[in-house]
Amino acid sequence: MENLPVIILVQPQLAENIGMTARAMMNCGLYDLRLVSPRQDHLSPKAVAAASGAEEILYKAKIFAATEEAVADLAQVYATTARHRNQIKLVYTAEKAMQNFDTLCRQNVKCGILFGPERTGLQNDDVALADAIINIPLNPKHCSLNLSQAVLLVGYEFYKCRTDIPATRFITNGAEIAPKEKLLQFFDFLEKELDECGNFKIDEKRPRMVRNLRNIFSRPQLTGQELNTLYGVINYLRHPHKN
Amino acid sequence: MENLPVIILVQPQLAENIGMTARAMMNCGLYDLRLVSPRQDHLSPKAVAAASGAEEILYKAKIFAATEEAVADLAQVYATTARHRNQIKLVYTAEKAMQNFDTLCRQNVKCGILFGPERTGLQNDDVALADAIINIPLNPKHCSLNLSQAVLLVGYEFYKCRTDIPATRFITNGAEIAPKEKLLQFFDFLEKELDECGNFKIDEKRPRMVRNLRNIFSRPQLTGQELNTLYGVINYLRHPHKN
Repeated sequence: MENLPVIILVQPQLAENIGMTARAMMNCGLYDLRLVSPRQDHLSPKAVAAASGAEEILYKAKIFAATEEAVADLAQVYATTARHRNQIKLVYTAEKAMQNFDTLCRQNVKCGILFGPERTGLQNDDVALADAIINIPLNPKHCSLNLSQAVLLVGYEFYKCRTDIPATRFITNGAEIAPKEKLLQFFDFLEKELDECGNFKIDEKRPRMVRNLRNIFSRPQLTGQELNTLYGVINYLRHPHKN
Repeated sequence: MENLPVIILVQPQLAENIGMTARAMMNCGLYDLRLVSPRQDHLSPKAVAAASGAEEILYKAKIFAATEEAVADLAQVYATTARHRNQIKLVYTAEKAMQNFDTLCRQNVKCGILFGPERTGLQNDDVALADAIINIPLNPKHCSLNLSQAVLLVGYEFYKCRTDIPATRFITNGAEIAPKEKLLQFFDFLEKELDECGNFKIDEKRPRMVRNLRNIFSRPQLTGQELNTLYGVINYLRHPHKN
């Protein structure tokens, strides 16, 4: 079984938020949920409905009476809190914190993240149990987050460490970008048609117009099929109604 | 007025989701909301309650009859969609997409992000209006997101581009980490006390034990006040009940 961070909700107030947390965890590929003295039943119909397909996380969730018990088997624990506490501690952005946890989990260090009750956030004594504080960078004028959204943002940062999706892709649905040879043939065709239509009648402007057109049709990275579409379009424009 | 990305919800179904979107936008410092044919009233009590302090975004939201009208004044539009479409298009991760938008907004290019209806997502014709697709990297086995959560994750990536919070901070609440001189004085004191207590009775082990202790008390990056706390602790241990 892969070693992944544990999500620990301390005294969550609303069953719906526990359910939404389970959903957010599954979105991010996290499965181990611990609840410290939840105020409502995490298996209530409201919680299960809010989990929206992630009920198995609720069914497997473990309940603890105190935060100390919930973190007992973990070696690294970070606490999420938006407010500065009167404590001397390391503070990581969510991104950096999850990069740390990604590294630690790969070394089989058991890691967990504490989230406080909806209204008050974590108590100072719970924060003191943690090795570091996680700060989620958000608009300081309006940084109150729903509990499950905080879990989602932190979990998302962990998931990003584990995914290798390239930042930029060009999806072509199996088609290939046309080789330059095909594109140059299309340029020749287009320029010949435009010559015949008198588009290039001012000789000294021709080279510049040709360059402009070549730039326009180079940028889209056309596939062979798309070039054929453009040949058709030009033919129809040149010879309307002809089939 | 700073140029920031516009959030465009196409045919949102639930007023509550529009309100939660406004809240997520304010979390991320985004304020311009556009709604294309919303199915429920974005100023209903449910929507305003869900906005939870971000009502001004709802009041200022603009309503459009068609996606084409909502994007008319924008120069770059990206579409969020989890599914691959049968379209030949650039796909950016949310992080890369918002890095692009950050750059473009600074160049005063007006940018917008399309989000589709809750159940179906964007229609292909709406996706075709976009310059690129945004993919939010999430667990492929469970990637369905609440509408406002999708807005939150994309907005969060934009906010991250605009914030300069360091990835790692050590908060000391104004206290300063003790200079090495103070730490070395503390080591001398501790080692002298331990010598007197017979802790270092095996001579050849002394250097190693001293190094271990110095490592233990170097790692926490102690402040002057914390060193005083430790002096006190050691004195109490050595001379119980004495004051």
